[in-house]
Amino acid sequence: MAEEYSIGVDVGGTKIAIGLITERQGLIASERIASGFGMDVDQWVLDVNEAIIQLCTGIGLDAITAIGVGFAGQINPATGEVKASPNIGWRNVKVKDRLENVTGKPVTVVNDVQSASWAEWVHGAGVGATNMVCVFVGTGVGGGIIIDGGLYKGSSGSAGEIGHITLKPGGRVCTCGGKGCLEAYTGGWAIALRVQEAVTQDPNGGKFLLGLVDSDIRKLTAKEVSKAAHLGDSFALDLVEVIGKDLGIGIVSVVNMFNPETIVLGGGVVDGLPWLIDFAAHEIREGALASSVESLKIASAELANDAPVIGAGLLALEQERTKHLW
Amino acid sequence: MAEEYSIGVDVGGTKIAIGLITERQGLIASERIASGFGMDVDQWVLDVNEAIIQLCTGIGLDAITAIGVGFAGQINPATGEVKASPNIGWRNVKVKDRLENVTGKPVTVVNDVQSASWAEWVHGAGVGATNMVCVFVGTGVGGGIIIDGGLYKGSSGSAGEIGHITLKPGGRVCTCGGKGCLEAYTGGWAIALRVQEAVTQDPNGGKFLLGLVDSDIRKLTAKEVSKAAHLGDSFALDLVEVIGKDLGIGIVSVVNMFNPETIVLGGGVVDGLPWLIDFAAHEIREGALASSVESLKIASAELANDAPVIGAGLLALEQERTKHLW
Repeated sequence: MAEEYSIGVDVGGTKIAIGLITERQGLIASERIASGFGMDVDQWVLDVNEAIIQLCTGIGLDAITAIGVGFAGQINPATGEVKASPNIGWRNVKVKDRLENVTGKPVTVVNDVQSASWAEWVHGAGVGATNMVCVFVGTGVGGGIIIDGGLYKGSSGSAGEIGHITLKPGGRVCTCGGKGCLEAYTGGWAIALRVQEAVTQDPNGGKFLLGLVDSDIRKLTAKEVSKAAHLGDSFALDLVEVIGKDLGIGIVSVVNMFNPETIVLGGGVVDGLPWLIDFAAHEIREGALASSVESLKIASAELANDAPVIGAGLLALEQERTKHLW
Repeated sequence: MAEEYSIGVDVGGTKIAIGLITERQGLIASERIASGFGMDVDQWVLDVNEAIIQLCTGIGLDAITAIGVGFAGQINPATGEVKASPNIGWRNVKVKDRLENVTGKPVTVVNDVQSASWAEWVHGAGVGATNMVCVFVGTGVGGGIIIDGGLYKGSSGSAGEIGHITLKPGGRVCTCGGKGCLEAYTGGWAIALRVQEAVTQDPNGGKFLLGLVDSDIRKLTAKEVSKAAHLGDSFALDLVEVIGKDLGIGIVSVVNMFNPETIVLGGGVVDGLPWLIDFAAHEIREGALASSVESLKIASAELANDAPVIGAGLLALEQERTKHLW
């Protein structure tokens, strides 16, 4: 059988990645176009279609089996509707119908963290695992779950919201409206608040960090923590240890509940603060049940920023392959 | 097709329930024999076989398709070995092989909480749900997970250890060796400690409870809390509210991670303190993500003490039906 091609689309807050994907090779070629809050849906459909045509100049559009589109936020996987994607401000947009009308290809709409997890399972750190949980730490904290070799989406498509495990009841306020969520301790936005608080409390200890932002505490973010930690600043490294332990404690609950073979840790914050993996892994091996950690593998994500676009394309192929089962 | 019969066996710390099971009718008849810590495996096999013969007097042994045996503790579902069952003190016992040799029937060995969850899904509060999580609160806190209509056992058989979600990092010491686990706040043994602490701190408020145990604080358990709460004692009811909220906070993490259609709450402590369900449900609906609770059903378990024996028998039938798939 000739290899099947698909298109993966990863819709971020500032840019959209569009990739040509095969199951065997993963990402073959990609294009990027601009994105933005409140962007027009009609224009978006035309722009994405144009980029797909560009990407397929060599192989021809007929070679494309399907298109997968990933969004941050809440998706209805059954209807292919984006219920709410906060970073672009879309609500109740029928992406599947709209894009199918213009492209003439079957379109699958997915959550970007779920698609990144699927990519890590097919082509990255999770290859060979029957059950796997990915934890991505970026501005927010999200996760994806592979069970018995399939992506587990949950009853309304929102499975894997690991950032909203309760870490400390009644604790730090979270973007979800709750209190004490894992994300409120370990997400990029929370790390910014935590470093600002730590430096406010101990300006002398934090003087290296302060030097990176001309002493304007409010400008401190996870990026400065990464920079300082890479340069060996012990104040920054201490904070990374606290955050890594918090991350690990959250994942202990995941491991005890799911008993996965593999935990994959990735995302921009983990890339910038790679020590988080060791601190979290130590906490997981100490804190989780022996029966669940004895054969647990804890791995670093391998596909970096390409994971969502690859996963979206692969899920579209998977959807076509299994649609006779539905 | 004639209805298939199976045998379910539920091995508890003081007694063993043996039931005749069909998929349509559930539990048809049952026997009980004694159990105990350190009981002899050879004798156990003979006793269970004898009870099975008794139960099948009417229908004949040939009518039995398979036998399912449930244990508390750690099971290897692949080999049918009991790795560790603390309440009877067994370690590394090849239950499947031993019982197959004597009975001549295929034997499936299961975790009792997982089998109870399966029973609730087939015949109880979870009927019709695609994805479901059961939370059983007894002396300990355990759970079972149904995903896409199948029992999810995890990579080493220990999925669903909801009692060992971290509720409060560094908090109350748990039987697992960890700290701050959900079970250390809401399990029967933990409720005993919490009521003893509460009454020690406020003997006047707790005087009704004290009266139930001749003022011997160390004799207070979840049972007295139940008795006092049923009689309207506000001190006991306040404690139940605190425990119900803790239970709900733990389940928020379950709901955000799994996005199940249905949460089933059961077990001896929930039966004795039924207010726990409402307090927990309130906390879940307040604390979990809107996308995960909008269509969530929270239900009370329906099969009570029969759930593990029914589930063991049903899982044995399921195993036989699907074995060609493995």
